[in-house]
Amino acid sequence: MFGKTNTCFTMSQGYLDLKYKPQSNDLVCLFYVEPAEGVSLAKAANHVAGESSIGTWTEVSTMKDDIWGKLRPSIYSLDEENKLVKIAYPLELFEPENIAQILSSVAGNIYGMKALENLRLLDVGFPSKMIKKHAGPRFGIQGVRDVVEVRERPLVGTIVKPKVGLPPREHANVAYEAWVGGCDVVKDDENLTSQGFNKFKDRITETLGARDKAEGDSGETKVYMPNVTAETYEMLERIDYVKDHGGRYAMVDVVTLGFSAVQSVRQKDYGVVLHAHRAMHAALTRNPRHGITMLALAKLLRLVGVDQLHIGTAVGKMQGPKEEVYSISQAITQKKVEEKQDRLPQLWGQVKPVFPVCSGGLHPGHVPELMGFMGQDIIIQAGGGIHGHPEGTRQGAEAMRAAIEATLENQSLHQWGEKHKPLELALRKFK
Amino acid sequence: MFGKTNTCFTMSQGYLDLKYKPQSNDLVCLFYVEPAEGVSLAKAANHVAGESSIGTWTEVSTMKDDIWGKLRPSIYSLDEENKLVKIAYPLELFEPENIAQILSSVAGNIYGMKALENLRLLDVGFPSKMIKKHAGPRFGIQGVRDVVEVRERPLVGTIVKPKVGLPPREHANVAYEAWVGGCDVVKDDENLTSQGFNKFKDRITETLGARDKAEGDSGETKVYMPNVTAETYEMLERIDYVKDHGGRYAMVDVVTLGFSAVQSVRQKDYGVVLHAHRAMHAALTRNPRHGITMLALAKLLRLVGVDQLHIGTAVGKMQGPKEEVYSISQAITQKKVEEKQDRLPQLWGQVKPVFPVCSGGLHPGHVPELMGFMGQDIIIQAGGGIHGHPEGTRQGAEAMRAAIEATLENQSLHQWGEKHKPLELALRKFK
Repeated sequence: MFGKTNTCFTMSQGYLDLKYKPQSNDLVCLFYVEPAEGVSLAKAANHVAGESSIGTWTEVSTMKDDIWGKLRPSIYSLDEENKLVKIAYPLELFEPENIAQILSSVAGNIYGMKALENLRLLDVGFPSKMIKKHAGPRFGIQGVRDVVEVRERPLVGTIVKPKVGLPPREHANVAYEAWVGGCDVVKDDENLTSQGFNKFKDRITETLGARDKAEGDSGETKVYMPNVTAETYEMLERIDYVKDHGGRYAMVDVVTLGFSAVQSVRQKDYGVVLHAHRAMHAALTRNPRHGITMLALAKLLRLVGVDQLHIGTAVGKMQGPKEEVYSISQAITQKKVEEKQDRLPQLWGQVKPVFPVCSGGLHPGHVPELMGFMGQDIIIQAGGGIHGHPEGTRQGAEAMRAAIEATLENQSLHQWGEKHKPLELALRKFK
Repeated sequence: MFGKTNTCFTMSQGYLDLKYKPQSNDLVCLFYVEPAEGVSLAKAANHVAGESSIGTWTEVSTMKDDIWGKLRPSIYSLDEENKLVKIAYPLELFEPENIAQILSSVAGNIYGMKALENLRLLDVGFPSKMIKKHAGPRFGIQGVRDVVEVRERPLVGTIVKPKVGLPPREHANVAYEAWVGGCDVVKDDENLTSQGFNKFKDRITETLGARDKAEGDSGETKVYMPNVTAETYEMLERIDYVKDHGGRYAMVDVVTLGFSAVQSVRQKDYGVVLHAHRAMHAALTRNPRHGITMLALAKLLRLVGVDQLHIGTAVGKMQGPKEEVYSISQAITQKKVEEKQDRLPQLWGQVKPVFPVCSGGLHPGHVPELMGFMGQDIIIQAGGGIHGHPEGTRQGAEAMRAAIEATLENQSLHQWGEKHKPLELALRKFK
């Protein structure tokens, strides 16, 4: 039965099929493939297609006609100039519910192959049959707006600073100042979980208490996003604790946790909004020739079902990063995502949109450009840009809210600042 | 209380302290830091130290004297020529049980900073106080040898091939052939979990049945490493199923699962040997100037407590990869790991060694070089190098065992092959 090598399944025959049209049940990947010296793009693509599905480095006696017939992926597009390769995989190759399994296939061993110099997974297109196996976000943009009770402007958020070090009471006090100054959202830093100087449970009770006080004093709804990142069971216990104490949110460091734990949190369906921080993503996403794009990670996270996701800031002079952030924003918010050179088309069906979070070095001066580019359905998160205000956290938050009001009123920040001292001071400091 | 900005905590003061000696409770990181144009190494290192601990991009009003005093990391070594930076962090900054939290600190936002062109975490040194918070491997090398009952030679393993596609019965048949041919270990492929063509439970019962038969027919102990990779709860149910059906092993794709799920598996302490496959690691580890080294990942996995880990093959002509594999092997097996230019010293205390798995394009012809370099405490895994044998799987496994025997007897493979037909055929095919 497992006798002599069946030589009809050689690598030379391969997976190239440029006449192939992706089927409705195919999972499609767009790769940037940089072949090793002396290797053609077609040959390198063949290695990628094989190692990510049914192949190995030599022909094997155990290969079967029906496996080749039913499970073979098809390389249906080769762009030699831009080194872009599109591969369609039959969905039967995968366990559609299992993100780790899918990554172990289309983002697994292939990164280490000798036939390649560099490899980047640019995008993954999910067939509708796979999408139906995942819940997607429970809240989405509209659900989050219902929780926060803010309808027609960006949400304003801050991160308690310094990143770590404050004890629970002081942490809660900083949060209070930010809320009464005008922040809707206060979140923990990505590396604050449960350290000796600030134990998780103490922080939750103190900070949710400060939230209640801030809601009373401001007359606005306020939310706190505690970082529950930990080993899976511990994390789920922390979410229970948050919920038991009146919390409405949980923040998870999705990349350092890993997809299996993120799936576990979503599947437990606690009824809290899931805020996804992406710390460590740039270890994978930053090199333009290797790794995985933020676009691909963001789509996987929408599929699994986070409600909010950090996607970058899209401010500044460089067009490239701006377009990338915009493209990611479309991919996590639109129902139908159009194809581009570096992006696959995607139909999301009933999957809700993820609320894009813009964070990283933002201050009030960035608001007009940011809203001009991204619109109103964003969460503007500023840490240093609020706590670094010359008059402190509260005025820093006031300045951020004023910048948003000015932009909604089509006024320049400097005009608006003439009547709003905190904004004027912020503009003078942050240039 | 949160009033004017306290300007004594500026970035210009910074974290540089070349006279600092790491303390016994410090967590130490070795980074390769490539500054952006016009940025000095010291300045870039300051950004890394701040963003991975208590800093942000601007001075903030909420910083406190005692935070700076107690929690400030120290850049204690700057090697301008090789762009190497060593930073010692007080352990109080971290939640020592929480790998995701530690990564969100020392391998988090820092990868995306504008002050850097590239950044690579080369190694993490754990203080003994942190090590004591983790179980480490339950079995380790000696425990695995007790399970497999093989004392004084490398273990021989194969991966069922083709990677995916075989139904459970045929999967079990291939495994049986490999076992009776001489393999100790048969494992699933990294992308085989529970697909329609091969449901997990069916595969487990079929393959463990084949294992029992192979044990009877060969008179040797045989082990099966089923891939249980999935969402955390599903994965733990799969391990339960394996154990209930007489399995002694579970295989996990540690990188695509993520550290929180790996911690969950270890903490549940099922009493099965944990085999760690590293699919996707090269997305992080391959670029020599960016990402995270396999050494750092491997040390984190030893700390968490996997029993076996893929570390590469160390065969071939290139010295660089060979030395890297050897260095990783030392780091996961030795009690006391010596410092090198690209490695930190590490004392492992009572933490057991991890069994190194050499896998990837191996065939019998590689065995003498591999054993000469790595010794006997390795698991030699060959997929194509066994199933690609001209006479099929069983003789492929016989050839691999023969190659090990020859090497232990100090005989050349070609001499040995004269009396061992399967080995001779393998040597003729794989060159």
